[in-house]
Amino acid sequence: MFRILKKDIKTKARIGLLKTSHFEVTTPNFMPVATQGSVKMISPDELKKIGVEIVVCNTYHLMQRPGTALLKKLGGIHKFMDWDRAILTDSGGFQAYSLSPLRNVDDDGLTFTSHIDGSKIHLTPEKAIEVQRDLGTDIAMCLDFFTPYPSEFIEARIAVERTVNWAKRSLMVKKKPKIFAIVQGATFGELRKDCARRLLELRFPGYGIGGLMIGEPAHLTMEMVNTVNEIIPENKVRYLMGCGYPEDILEAVSLGVDLFDCVLPTRNGRTGMAFTSEGKIIIKSSRYADDDAPLDKNCNCYTCRNFSRAYLRHLFNVGEGLGGRLVSYHNISFYISLMKKIRYHIQKGNYDKFLLKTKASFNFRSGLKKSEFDSVNSKLKLD
Amino acid sequence: MFRILKKDIKTKARIGLLKTSHFEVTTPNFMPVATQGSVKMISPDELKKIGVEIVVCNTYHLMQRPGTALLKKLGGIHKFMDWDRAILTDSGGFQAYSLSPLRNVDDDGLTFTSHIDGSKIHLTPEKAIEVQRDLGTDIAMCLDFFTPYPSEFIEARIAVERTVNWAKRSLMVKKKPKIFAIVQGATFGELRKDCARRLLELRFPGYGIGGLMIGEPAHLTMEMVNTVNEIIPENKVRYLMGCGYPEDILEAVSLGVDLFDCVLPTRNGRTGMAFTSEGKIIIKSSRYADDDAPLDKNCNCYTCRNFSRAYLRHLFNVGEGLGGRLVSYHNISFYISLMKKIRYHIQKGNYDKFLLKTKASFNFRSGLKKSEFDSVNSKLKLD
Repeated sequence: MFRILKKDIKTKARIGLLKTSHFEVTTPNFMPVATQGSVKMISPDELKKIGVEIVVCNTYHLMQRPGTALLKKLGGIHKFMDWDRAILTDSGGFQAYSLSPLRNVDDDGLTFTSHIDGSKIHLTPEKAIEVQRDLGTDIAMCLDFFTPYPSEFIEARIAVERTVNWAKRSLMVKKKPKIFAIVQGATFGELRKDCARRLLELRFPGYGIGGLMIGEPAHLTMEMVNTVNEIIPENKVRYLMGCGYPEDILEAVSLGVDLFDCVLPTRNGRTGMAFTSEGKIIIKSSRYADDDAPLDKNCNCYTCRNFSRAYLRHLFNVGEGLGGRLVSYHNISFYISLMKKIRYHIQKGNYDKFLLKTKASFNFRSGLKKSEFDSVNSKLKLD
Repeated sequence: MFRILKKDIKTKARIGLLKTSHFEVTTPNFMPVATQGSVKMISPDELKKIGVEIVVCNTYHLMQRPGTALLKKLGGIHKFMDWDRAILTDSGGFQAYSLSPLRNVDDDGLTFTSHIDGSKIHLTPEKAIEVQRDLGTDIAMCLDFFTPYPSEFIEARIAVERTVNWAKRSLMVKKKPKIFAIVQGATFGELRKDCARRLLELRFPGYGIGGLMIGEPAHLTMEMVNTVNEIIPENKVRYLMGCGYPEDILEAVSLGVDLFDCVLPTRNGRTGMAFTSEGKIIIKSSRYADDDAPLDKNCNCYTCRNFSRAYLRHLFNVGEGLGGRLVSYHNISFYISLMKKIRYHIQKGNYDKFLLKTKASFNFRSGLKKSEFDSVNSKLKLD
């Protein structure tokens, strides 16, 4: 299922080929998020043109609307959203923890009220896999449990126990799809190692690294990633969940991570923030009002080939939706192109130099506020 | 500039070729509206794929944002919005009358406060043409003056006088682009004839029929169109401004109209109303929740080739912007395809039969409320 094609010597970066029922995904790769069965504003046709090979869909949303039974009846999520490449689905847990107004978690699973219609939904580890199977996913994620940042050791310890138990139960499902387990353990190295070792015994083909990118300092994130990747052997896929800043992707790849996902390229694209080879651009700024240059002079995407910053600025300035669409398109192109460059330099054997040089030119994390994570963290209390 | 390729025998329909500086437009044709330099949600690349040959841009909006001077400096509206086919611009008058909170009109022109920033703008017939020239339009429209429906004969009479005087003054502009005059006269046949005759003496290459589609009964619209087209000779382009219901387009073509424009395909598309060969579809309705069929089984556009009604319904139901984009795409395709069929049947010599059969199957005007026009009409008072 997963084959390593090339290993870097100076770092732990590697190029791999991840075979799924719909598509062979080259890694390291980035997965745009199709939360509700659509990468916001972008057509599947365009995703293919950009070179996207795999997207993430959110089980929490899709199981409620349009609903698991309907999606199954209509032939599955691929047909529904006209996407014939790979799909990874999350378990629904993260959204249930962060979006639902009322939750109750115990060792059996979690019960939550829908943030859409207030209905009560019970999600067990088995149910989470069954739903993902019925959606027709290529890769399902185990239901896991995690704690906010910062958290107490004892809380994180309990979360690990539950996560491992739930991973075991995930394997009991009949006709199950390919499943990745999720390593938890907050920012405690020993817990991360323990969780990784115990999940490894269950022989999943891939492992998510979860409970990070929720406001902890970047150096702690990378420390945890490194700790986990020392336990998870090379022949397993490693997926750093929710990691989306290009700086972090560059570093995590050097620690042996293969898959990334994040809403950043589309969420920021819709508000006019562009990721470019020269750093962050807030296109709505009046400084671009008469700027004839493309958004990113080093980019060859549809947006950069055909439109000026002045035009994009105008679209945002007058509230035309095409602006968010064109900048989202560019941002996804930027990420996919970054992943291509990463693979190119691993292949060439100079990834270490590429990493240092490129990271130094990026400023995407700057100005990042702790408050961006507070709303998630305030909900992530151990029940 | 305008060449008739084929004339229908039983009706006044005709196929023509309208040569502009950027593109040869086949007529009868429909012009999607790129109000602020963008056909809402749709890329120029897609417009070309659909087969759009000409779009309408709004001078009132563009002269304010991004501004005439900036657009000129950036190389004109075509380059700005990446559209290398034909563009027709309106004079800015209609929006000034209907959007501006404060207007004052006299024989010299109109002064209005911007609905955007409250600044005072003075628009004369000369200025309107100069602005359109500086935007780089292919076809400019004369600044005109019109009255609401219903209006008094004397008011409509004054509007005609002013419109004719302003048309004369439009011709004084240096380096002027191709200009179409606009025939006014409300719903008074004699005034329409008089206006048409006097404008004809000024030898414009094309004539807009204005001041209609503002709430008057459809039979009165068509009566006026017929009256005007009996005066405007065959070798002139005839453009029925703001006419967008497929039923009306079919009928107006039979009276010899060549060009149409309307925001309907995109405005309705964004709210989930689709124009289909089987009539109107409100895609958000729960009846489509599990409907596996394409939006329009007789349509071959990107939306209909790849997505089900169930998927489109889901996108609207959960508020995903891709829904509005895909339905707008279909709607524009529907209009362009309708125009192709119209030309095909004129060519074949059976347009009369096609008109009757097709019109009977359309229900797009049904449920149309007078209140839709009230906000425009309430502002259209003679100053």
